[in-house]
Amino acid sequence: MNCSKTLDAMRIDVISVIPGFFDSVLDNGLLSIARKKQYADIHIHNLHDYGLGRYRQVDDSPFGGGAGMVLRPEPVFSCIEALQAERAYDEVIFLTPDGKLFEQSLANRLSGMQNLIILCGHYKAVDERIRQKLITMEISIGDVVLSGGEIPALLLMDAVLRVIPGVLGDSESALTDSFQNGLLDCVYYTRPAEFRGMKVPDILMSGHHSKIEQWRGENALERTRTRRPDLLGRE
Amino acid sequence: MNCSKTLDAMRIDVISVIPGFFDSVLDNGLLSIARKKQYADIHIHNLHDYGLGRYRQVDDSPFGGGAGMVLRPEPVFSCIEALQAERAYDEVIFLTPDGKLFEQSLANRLSGMQNLIILCGHYKAVDERIRQKLITMEISIGDVVLSGGEIPALLLMDAVLRVIPGVLGDSESALTDSFQNGLLDCVYYTRPAEFRGMKVPDILMSGHHSKIEQWRGENALERTRTRRPDLLGRE
Repeated sequence: MNCSKTLDAMRIDVISVIPGFFDSVLDNGLLSIARKKQYADIHIHNLHDYGLGRYRQVDDSPFGGGAGMVLRPEPVFSCIEALQAERAYDEVIFLTPDGKLFEQSLANRLSGMQNLIILCGHYKAVDERIRQKLITMEISIGDVVLSGGEIPALLLMDAVLRVIPGVLGDSESALTDSFQNGLLDCVYYTRPAEFRGMKVPDILMSGHHSKIEQWRGENALERTRTRRPDLLGRE
Repeated sequence: MNCSKTLDAMRIDVISVIPGFFDSVLDNGLLSIARKKQYADIHIHNLHDYGLGRYRQVDDSPFGGGAGMVLRPEPVFSCIEALQAERAYDEVIFLTPDGKLFEQSLANRLSGMQNLIILCGHYKAVDERIRQKLITMEISIGDVVLSGGEIPALLLMDAVLRVIPGVLGDSESALTDSFQNGLLDCVYYTRPAEFRGMKVPDILMSGHHSKIEQWRGENALERTRTRRPDLLGRE
């Protein structure tokens, strides 16, 4: 019964019409690490498994005409209700450009949850009744339109799992990231100390810890002022 | 010499420390379609191929101390300069949370370019000299920190390739998306007309094309007003 870690893992059920998309991303990078360390239990569901008829249809033309296809209600209701019959979910997330903007604070909040469903839209849209009845949280990853919710789902999972203590090798690293303290991060340098005539700032080579921290704080503030003054105006 | 389409394809060179991440995403969904139709010629480069010494080292500790690792200059310079020796690039893009926010207008602009390099950061940061000397465009996908630039690179490629005429089966579809006219998109319904007592709005079933267009326009405006009033204030 050596499975206490698995019992605490965040479970994420992703529903997609192109489940094969996720094959290599679950086995490389942070999602792979989170799974191997048993902080995350990610399940990819093929919406076509819940499709209609012998062709496993999941979409249809929009009422009222127009280009593009719309995901039908029946397959999505079947899939999500089958999952909800197994366990309670904290949120049923739909990734959509008209949702609430995904920011670090939301990633931090989601990282404390136990069970999540993520519905990836595809084609033109999903039937509005799915959004009204099943979805509890609509999230946008920005003012840009994509071919589907698969990439935003990856983005969400990466950001959320990344801040769970223990997933990163060095938990301190996530805390000094951009946005965690309301500022952009400072600049970084590594070896070699001189490369093609470009030198690392002397202060970083000084070994004077408190002065380095001060320099980094000033650098972060200056970069934020130059690049993202809007961040300084918040709260 | 039946290769005129390939000659016009947008070439994208992606540099990553986890190239295997991209295997299944290039073969599923929009990126796969764009490649098969020869609108995109995507090359994934393993930064470790340009790494130092027998362990193909690509990163090192930050000068001045602190958690996390920093990508060293030499491998990145070697890789990008090898590519630039082969052809001219319109932009060398670095994906970073302190870059310029990625929006639809930028996706549209990039879709007209011929050759792009995308450097995916990983670990804590990249040496600042890389950013100063090699990078021509720094792009952020939003105020959230991720484990690396791979997911943002996917997001960028999807958004950019999606608006190239011919990549989507129905080119009209991309033009009615959210943001292309400064508004969120309207709601959509498909079959069945009634599902568990939830009916599709009568107007969409009326067959009256001009009234449907009017309803959709009002719905898009109302949704934008409710969900994203900030979009209405822009120009």
